[in-house]
Amino acid sequence: MQKTSIKKRVTLKDVANAVGVHVSTVSRALDPRTRHLITPEVAEQILKASERLDYRQNAAAYSLKTNRTRTIGVVVPDITNPVFPPIIRGVEDALASRGYVAILGNTDGDMRRETGLVETFRSRGVDGLILASVEREDAAVSKLAAEGLPVITVNRRVDDSTVASVVNDEAEGIRRVLTHLVSLGHRRVANIAGPQSLSTGAARYAGFEKYRGPMGLVDDRDLVVFANAFNEAEGERCVEELLACGAEFTAIVCSNDRLAVGAIAALSRHGLRCPEDVSVTGYNDMPMVERMQPPLTTIRIQSNKVGFEAGQLLVKMIERPPGEYEAEHIVLPIELIVRGSTRAIRPPNGRGRETG
Amino acid sequence: MQKTSIKKRVTLKDVANAVGVHVSTVSRALDPRTRHLITPEVAEQILKASERLDYRQNAAAYSLKTNRTRTIGVVVPDITNPVFPPIIRGVEDALASRGYVAILGNTDGDMRRETGLVETFRSRGVDGLILASVEREDAAVSKLAAEGLPVITVNRRVDDSTVASVVNDEAEGIRRVLTHLVSLGHRRVANIAGPQSLSTGAARYAGFEKYRGPMGLVDDRDLVVFANAFNEAEGERCVEELLACGAEFTAIVCSNDRLAVGAIAALSRHGLRCPEDVSVTGYNDMPMVERMQPPLTTIRIQSNKVGFEAGQLLVKMIERPPGEYEAEHIVLPIELIVRGSTRAIRPPNGRGRETG
Repeated sequence: MQKTSIKKRVTLKDVANAVGVHVSTVSRALDPRTRHLITPEVAEQILKASERLDYRQNAAAYSLKTNRTRTIGVVVPDITNPVFPPIIRGVEDALASRGYVAILGNTDGDMRRETGLVETFRSRGVDGLILASVEREDAAVSKLAAEGLPVITVNRRVDDSTVASVVNDEAEGIRRVLTHLVSLGHRRVANIAGPQSLSTGAARYAGFEKYRGPMGLVDDRDLVVFANAFNEAEGERCVEELLACGAEFTAIVCSNDRLAVGAIAALSRHGLRCPEDVSVTGYNDMPMVERMQPPLTTIRIQSNKVGFEAGQLLVKMIERPPGEYEAEHIVLPIELIVRGSTRAIRPPNGRGRETG
Repeated sequence: MQKTSIKKRVTLKDVANAVGVHVSTVSRALDPRTRHLITPEVAEQILKASERLDYRQNAAAYSLKTNRTRTIGVVVPDITNPVFPPIIRGVEDALASRGYVAILGNTDGDMRRETGLVETFRSRGVDGLILASVEREDAAVSKLAAEGLPVITVNRRVDDSTVASVVNDEAEGIRRVLTHLVSLGHRRVANIAGPQSLSTGAARYAGFEKYRGPMGLVDDRDLVVFANAFNEAEGERCVEELLACGAEFTAIVCSNDRLAVGAIAALSRHGLRCPEDVSVTGYNDMPMVERMQPPLTTIRIQSNKVGFEAGQLLVKMIERPPGEYEAEHIVLPIELIVRGSTRAIRPPNGRGRETG
């Protein structure tokens, strides 16, 4: 049998009565910054009594007094998408070290749900927001920042530069991928670009367009297709589209790992092996892609660090004195991870492996 | 430039002053349950004024008044372990529909960190806790439940049945796996058991011991090895241990998917192919295992539902009137998912595939 009546919360007053002092004395004794204001003997008595009575600071009372909750809202598209847990973990680790906690919400990519979650979080008095769900055009987010609520976008950013952000160096990631493929002899490189409404999709596609000419890649409209979402099904659909229009390619640069996983599956259904017939690259280095067959060549983003930096920057924004500040934008370096899904192009005589 | 001074919070009093009524009238007008106590005209005026002034209920004031925060604490070993995000998502979906939110913490399997997180969450006045991090022996958790704090363990349980739980039908999962392997002709089946300090590891191993005799499997001590953790590295180590002691087996039942992924990699290093030489099964059906080579035969747990049920049950426990209640224990059914990592045993003459 389990008792369900919760013990009445022990208050400062209970501790004060137990020791026989005023409430304000207890308050001073329990705060390390003001403890020196009372005699060590009384402080000792108060600390012992508060421990014996199991007194805990009341977060709600603290919050009413300071108008701070030391709680922040984190909004992601979907926590079950393997890209986001390491970012959230990074945020939480940064917050925990500063005495903050995160409440979390999922939008499933629905901007109306983002608006609803932000409203819910604000009514709970969050001190700030970290948003991994934003689209490039997001007037609601700009408005929050303009109102002075500390807001940071993480992994993605909005076009409006007044909203702070922590993101990855997307264009550099694509440049590294293309340099790698060119070094393997690939010239006909297709691109499965991500959704252009998201900064990640747009910046990676912009990188592809920027570098493919200078690197000597074949510039053919048919070699670019756009995914409507960053998932495996769209990767499969995009390969079908590439094949249907008769585009010739020896490699596919995918805007993220999930698109690449879908692309490899669709190629395989058409009898095209990766990497023997087509090299494929991803982006993110999400968990398990090193265990796939073939293991995926991809760009490793610093997911945990992106989250950690965002958490640290948000606390800094919350705790700094009021005033005018430029929104900070942090861009973290990426890393090329070469695995089995890319290989030197097979020349017409079929001796491709020797050239790798 | 971004303004960082936050607008002063609009209070009930501001709304009352704007309309020229008493604060208590505003309070009644804004609560749908008491709105009928005032005239419709005044209610209308108050609602319009509160909207115009952008009034939001102050969560801290609500909390002080009711001693409720509509916030619960969720503790997991590590959100980046793919087993946990779907569970957390289920919890959050259940909570959101009831106006609750979750704050999340990671223990990395360290019981001292669990204790610290629970303490932090309690000081923030959480209404209840959902713990996915518990070991079987966890006196601290029993104590919380005995004190009347609503607590549920999810995915795992503690041995103490006074602590409510939502888990999967572990023994039935192992029975299904063994039935499948026996139907494929396997009799020498090894078991990579999980940590016995966790209910999942213990219950799955107990299932193996319970059913292997009645199903006619070879009962050999050398066929069971124990992993110290549920991860790929331990799966690899356990296969090395099985091979080092010269155990003969045609299949390995692994206590979870990550152990199975590691086991297949280690077998491969020894020139043993899965499934041609050794069939391997997992447990959980975590994301991506259907994309592995070979795709993993495993037990699908209802991760999302486990979380959702836990969220619902916790809200029920929080909102029911004080009194004595039996702790509820919910066990959800599992499903066998047959994929490419299991195959009919190859008889000595090598015609195994025909028998499948």
